[in-house]
Amino acid sequence: MPIIECIPNVSEGRRPEVVESIAAAVRAVPGVRLLDHSSDASHNRSVFTMAGDAKPIKAAVLAIYERAVAAIDLRSHHGEHPRLGAVDVVPFVPIEGVTMDACVALARDVGEEVAARFAVPVYLYEEASDNPARKNLEDIRRGEFEGLAAKIASPGWAPDFGPAAPHASAGASVIGARMPLIAYNINLNTDRLDVAKKIAAAIRHSSGGFRYVKAAGFKLEDRGIVQVSMNLTNYEKTPIFRVFETVKREAERYGVSILESEIVGLVPAAALNAAAEYYLQIGGFSAEAQILENKLRQTP
Amino acid sequence: MPIIECIPNVSEGRRPEVVESIAAAVRAVPGVRLLDHSSDASHNRSVFTMAGDAKPIKAAVLAIYERAVAAIDLRSHHGEHPRLGAVDVVPFVPIEGVTMDACVALARDVGEEVAARFAVPVYLYEEASDNPARKNLEDIRRGEFEGLAAKIASPGWAPDFGPAAPHASAGASVIGARMPLIAYNINLNTDRLDVAKKIAAAIRHSSGGFRYVKAAGFKLEDRGIVQVSMNLTNYEKTPIFRVFETVKREAERYGVSILESEIVGLVPAAALNAAAEYYLQIGGFSAEAQILENKLRQTP
Repeated sequence: MPIIECIPNVSEGRRPEVVESIAAAVRAVPGVRLLDHSSDASHNRSVFTMAGDAKPIKAAVLAIYERAVAAIDLRSHHGEHPRLGAVDVVPFVPIEGVTMDACVALARDVGEEVAARFAVPVYLYEEASDNPARKNLEDIRRGEFEGLAAKIASPGWAPDFGPAAPHASAGASVIGARMPLIAYNINLNTDRLDVAKKIAAAIRHSSGGFRYVKAAGFKLEDRGIVQVSMNLTNYEKTPIFRVFETVKREAERYGVSILESEIVGLVPAAALNAAAEYYLQIGGFSAEAQILENKLRQTP
Repeated sequence: MPIIECIPNVSEGRRPEVVESIAAAVRAVPGVRLLDHSSDASHNRSVFTMAGDAKPIKAAVLAIYERAVAAIDLRSHHGEHPRLGAVDVVPFVPIEGVTMDACVALARDVGEEVAARFAVPVYLYEEASDNPARKNLEDIRRGEFEGLAAKIASPGWAPDFGPAAPHASAGASVIGARMPLIAYNINLNTDRLDVAKKIAAAIRHSSGGFRYVKAAGFKLEDRGIVQVSMNLTNYEKTPIFRVFETVKREAERYGVSILESEIVGLVPAAALNAAAEYYLQIGGFSAEAQILENKLRQTP
């Protein structure tokens, strides 16, 4: 059974009854597992994590739109997190037995249907977008709901699907396909914030570093140390071990060593296996055929 | 569902009809998966790899005895591999959701029933044996079927279950519980066999090395290099990464580097995850809660 993960971000984090009604709608779809949902009141935003095959996942996303478009009005929505619409972002992520191309096709299919059924303009992003200026979520969302009417009418910003004007209360949506994110932090054996910031600048894409790394330096006040906090947006092309080794080498430059690293939330098994293969210099290894648990699951 | 792996070694590798009849008996047990079986004609021996919960696995082992004891006569059995009985060795291995203690209890339970039903004397081994002189399979099997009558009557060699005399045609059995084995080789960037042999001696238990490592040095003639070939018998207590790092350091002593390493056959996911955690210095990690695929399987 192919597994696609989908993580809709909905612009409601303060009314538990609305969030719960959306969660209930997802749970009611056969073939979809709701893995997690969490709300942030200051962001006024909720994140739903669900998994399943293409058809049930599509049904669950449409069910979310049905509830969210009816319940959320962006004209009176306030929160710290930038947002463009009631259902703000919908990424599809290939997990098992499914290609990125299939997730791109699903994003386009869902985007078309959302536009048709709810009259919500849809921008495709990341792997689902062919337009280099519209791959990055931050670029699409810049100006937020309040600036959307002007932006959507400006050159280069016609939506991929739906009307070239915002939905009055539900704004617009950004739908796409991407690799699983890994939230990865490295704690340094120093309290020098400048070191963490310099290392973050060295490794992140935006300032010349690795293509699939976002990074910033922070102080962990209570522990008296600093942290390089990262999002790894494609662990196949920019693997964890390469990032770790680069941070370690850059830290040495300042006489600093790595205290520990930390994976926040979920990590695909393949990302850890790749690290084991790299450091142990394992040749000719097949996770499918050689990891005992995988082999067990394949045998009927 | 708890998963126990069981790998019965049967003293028949030349008559495919006997091997196939044993495999069919295993397949007929509901709740047991026959993952693999392979026969070696020169060893005159077959290895069956199966998995399931305690109750079905016990039923499958008893089904193997039923066929093997009827079909195999050790008095006319010849082969290169040492053996004590028709069903020579039966290890139970904890894989998922089951403790080593539970596998020890299962080994004792199966041993008692085998002795009662088939009048085959049973020696417990590895974790299932309390007797330090009878933990090691090689010690128990020394003298083989031909020396068994004398050995079983000698002090310290009364079986754990069953008669203190060999079964006339089926000999005796060794039944126990152990951790999964990892067959692990490290290839060195040299053709000097003495270096591989010295490193093997440095790391293996029998000559002062790690408690759960068996090792030997070999020449890979066709590639013009040498190999340290290992069995890691408890990857939790003697982890792969520690063995790898020690081999690497010992090789440096001779100006030699590691070309690559190789995992032969199956490896538990936990053994690779431990290597990733070690090298990436990951703190506070939970494979159950944080590996995406595990999380997916836990959610109904």
